[in-house]
Amino acid sequence: MPSVKADWKQGLEFSVLQDGHRLTIDGTPEFGGADRGPRPKNLLLTALACCTGMDVVSILRKMKVEGYSLTVEARGEYTEEHPKVFSELEVEFIFTGRDLPRDRIERAVFLSSERYCGVSAMLRHTVDIGYTITLVEPEG
Amino acid sequence: MPSVKADWKQGLEFSVLQDGHRLTIDGTPEFGGADRGPRPKNLLLTALACCTGMDVVSILRKMKVEGYSLTVEARGEYTEEHPKVFSELEVEFIFTGRDLPRDRIERAVFLSSERYCGVSAMLRHTVDIGYTITLVEPEG
Repeated sequence: MPSVKADWKQGLEFSVLQDGHRLTIDGTPEFGGADRGPRPKNLLLTALACCTGMDVVSILRKMKVEGYSLTVEARGEYTEEHPKVFSELEVEFIFTGRDLPRDRIERAVFLSSERYCGVSAMLRHTVDIGYTITLVEPEG
Repeated sequence: MPSVKADWKQGLEFSVLQDGHRLTIDGTPEFGGADRGPRPKNLLLTALACCTGMDVVSILRKMKVEGYSLTVEARGEYTEEHPKVFSELEVEFIFTGRDLPRDRIERAVFLSSERYCGVSAMLRHTVDIGYTITLVEPEG
């Protein structure tokens, strides 16, 4: 069974072993942390961006779409009251390249968000997730 | 609004900026990755372990419980079919220390799992989460 091991170091700092890689997770000074690493809850944004991002580049490879760079931004707002969960969640795919095929890119994002991305599927029970695609033509 | 930015590097590798920290996330060679960083979906396990772990150490500090070390293990099984979501999820708190107060530790874990931990609250919509507490008496 996939597992992670998080060892408490000090303050709010944890040293985590996940998939053979070492991560430091920490809180902000405001809550007793020292900001030695990223926040645990915002890891859900990283998980979402990279899970759907990996799907999309894999699907586009099968579709023979090439010659682009990609940045995936995930933004989330939390509720004010405890437990703080997402009240808003959006993912933006920013593709940069010449004459990119919007229809195939939309299809790849749709397939990830609706069929393949497990992180999206889990978070969708909590909040609707908005997906947007931005195509950027490189300068020059 | 909290946000992360994930730049696609190559294969399945993404370089992520989260909370001012840089993370590398990657897939396994089996799926076209190079294992340069941990898997995106298993980040949910890290998020869960550290979110509830930070709650518990904070609550125990207020309860004046001291003199322990803590490891939080999170284990998750995924469904076979797409989208792959958790079919099982469990968190184990392993406390090592002398004469630790089990009642206050149980109370702290309960408060985190039921009231404070936003990651638990979100994942609970997908799967029941089991919590166990193990107290270890140091040797010698």
